Amino acid sequence: MALEIERKFLVKSDAFKKEATTSTRLVQGFLNTHPERTVRVRIDGDFGYLTVKGLSNETGTSRFEWEKEITLKEAEELILLCEPRILEKTRYKIPSGSHFFEVDEFHGENAGLVMAEIELQNEKDVFEIPEWLGKEVSGEIRYYNSQLSKQPFNTWEK
Amino acid sequence: MALEIERKFLVKSDAFKKEATTSTRLVQGFLNTHPERTVRVRIDGDFGYLTVKGLSNETGTSRFEWEKEITLKEAEELILLCEPRILEKTRYKIPSGSHFFEVDEFHGENAGLVMAEIELQNEKDVFEIPEWLGKEVSGEIRYYNSQLSKQPFNTWEK
Repeated sequence: MALEIERKFLVKSDAFKKEATTSTRLVQGFLNTHPERTVRVRIDGDFGYLTVKGLSNETGTSRFEWEKEITLKEAEELILLCEPRILEKTRYKIPSGSHFFEVDEFHGENAGLVMAEIELQNEKDVFEIPEWLGKEVSGEIRYYNSQLSKQPFNTWEK
Repeated sequence: MALEIERKFLVKSDAFKKEATTSTRLVQGFLNTHPERTVRVRIDGDFGYLTVKGLSNETGTSRFEWEKEITLKEAEELILLCEPRILEKTRYKIPSGSHFFEVDEFHGENAGLVMAEIELQNEKDVFEIPEWLGKEVSGEIRYYNSQLSKQPFNTWEK
């Protein structure tokens, strides 16, 4: 199990799309959405993944994470057991200096929400801020994917 | 993911112990105890297992089950994320005709509870009834291990 250090931001414009090197459609469900022990099933192309995450630290930037690759068939079967509301999103990978951003454009009931994440080696790592990057939302639980499957973006008070 | 067909019974006496071919100490916790999607982490000797089970059928004898072997270290780390109350039990394997029983003797807050399970190929399979076998409790949710971790046996009204 690794400690995952990442910072999460809203995205202000579509300008990131022309910088993206890849885009992938992801489908994911949760066997548990409790922030202390989320259990996620993900389909990413022809691959499946089962991921367990613990609670984040006080600044919301690091969480314990354990991930195992499973087969596509296993992931498809496990998704049938997941809590209601399967999330679908397109993930764009965007190189930025010595780092890269993953930008998730959500679909369905979370359409309109676009978030960028950057994974860091240390919490204080410096990184370039692209012009399309918006407000930081690291650690805001309502932006957790597990919570978006329970309280989707289109139900939020805007 | 397989359909697991099994019947579960209480155990009336210690007589099963002299018929046991193996006994193993098991430690297990739950990343989710919801009966529709239980997620169990188990340590069995030097091995670890992650198991997902769905809801049982109406007679309580079959449930979808998916299991993956993981390392002991992974299991030890994942158990730290589990819901409170880790279960400990000793499991005895007992051959009986063309089948075998697994008898679980619980420890800690579930001490006093001893249950036997038999795994079947078909729901109507016939099997021998050992003299130590008690009342059938197949499908009684309070006897699920996931529920015993929330409502342990020593809190039940007797």
